[in-house]
Amino acid sequence: MAKRIAVVLSGCGVYDGAEIHEAVITLLALDRRGAEAVICAPDVDQMHVVNHLTGQVAEGEKRNVLVESARIARGKIQDVKQVEADQVDGLILPGGFGAAKNLCDFAVKGKDCQVDSGVARLVREVHAQGKPVAAVCIAPAVLAGVLGAESPRLTIGNDAATAAALTAMGARHVDCAVDATTIDSEGKLITSPAYMLAGRISEAAEGIEKAVAELLAMA
Amino acid sequence: MAKRIAVVLSGCGVYDGAEIHEAVITLLALDRRGAEAVICAPDVDQMHVVNHLTGQVAEGEKRNVLVESARIARGKIQDVKQVEADQVDGLILPGGFGAAKNLCDFAVKGKDCQVDSGVARLVREVHAQGKPVAAVCIAPAVLAGVLGAESPRLTIGNDAATAAALTAMGARHVDCAVDATTIDSEGKLITSPAYMLAGRISEAAEGIEKAVAELLAMA
Repeated sequence: MAKRIAVVLSGCGVYDGAEIHEAVITLLALDRRGAEAVICAPDVDQMHVVNHLTGQVAEGEKRNVLVESARIARGKIQDVKQVEADQVDGLILPGGFGAAKNLCDFAVKGKDCQVDSGVARLVREVHAQGKPVAAVCIAPAVLAGVLGAESPRLTIGNDAATAAALTAMGARHVDCAVDATTIDSEGKLITSPAYMLAGRISEAAEGIEKAVAELLAMA
Repeated sequence: MAKRIAVVLSGCGVYDGAEIHEAVITLLALDRRGAEAVICAPDVDQMHVVNHLTGQVAEGEKRNVLVESARIARGKIQDVKQVEADQVDGLILPGGFGAAKNLCDFAVKGKDCQVDSGVARLVREVHAQGKPVAAVCIAPAVLAGVLGAESPRLTIGNDAATAAALTAMGARHVDCAVDATTIDSEGKLITSPAYMLAGRISEAAEGIEKAVAELLAMA
């Protein structure tokens, strides 16, 4: 039986949604290792829409996180509320600002952020069942938001201000190189900096591919 | 000096733009082989916007091909009109319906399609300079539209109706397996079926990675 891994997306585009390279590299790494991706996203509006050509907010535009995430999933996606921890062997959160704007409001509220209830419920339940959870780029902020009380060991690379916010949420932050992962063996948490540090796509891929390999080894 | 390869995108999402997996796999394969991607797209409105969750056209919505392609490019993109053949060593067109809806109107007009003037100009000039041009999935329709008079040898997989339309445009169609490429050595054209045949992302990746390797070998 193929291992089934929940892949939680946050839109489609680095500035207002899921980082597309990270999401696709995750899906490719899972498929190449024989695992099945159970792609999901919250059915909520994005915090905002960013024009990725100009970097400016597109005033008045609205997009839905689940609908935009469906672009990366080629339509094979479900509302995160419909995914049960029983149905999967592990979970991974690709990054992108969407993880900090749509899955939680870390981008606005920092250490005082709230995590989307559906995402928080799935992460908590998968973790409670002793299954591994991975997060890359800024997505470890979601783990800190949900599991901060357990002092999770994780990384978002080496940005001091971001690391301090995660520490304030209860996490034990560890600086980590772009091509490496940080493991919390007890909590079965795997994190990697990806585009928090990567200057090119192949750098992001190295850490993500390691994270996926470790996730599947623990699943 | 790194080889510079123009990557022509057609939006962001398989049903109305560039196929995201194909585009990212192309960018990763180029970077892993030390080449530099010169990402570009036409600055035109998409034919339409498709809700990728429902598969239905989102009536009344408008999106720009260059702006949406910028999501895949993380903002590092330019109008195809600004790219000169002199600046690159080769060109590749990922697929997705956008190639047949936004780069040309093959999806609507079949063999009578017109190719976007900026895309046609760049493909024609790169080809005229003896540099290699690759296209995957449905994007070989663009090559047939621009270079049909030269009887290019190419593949879109094995769909008989699509192959017949390309043949009517002057191409010599060759059936091709998902993990293989079709080469026109004289014309330096490389094509691979990708999601015209792929049932999973790793299958699409196999053919695309081969196409990129062959493109760079000829560049």
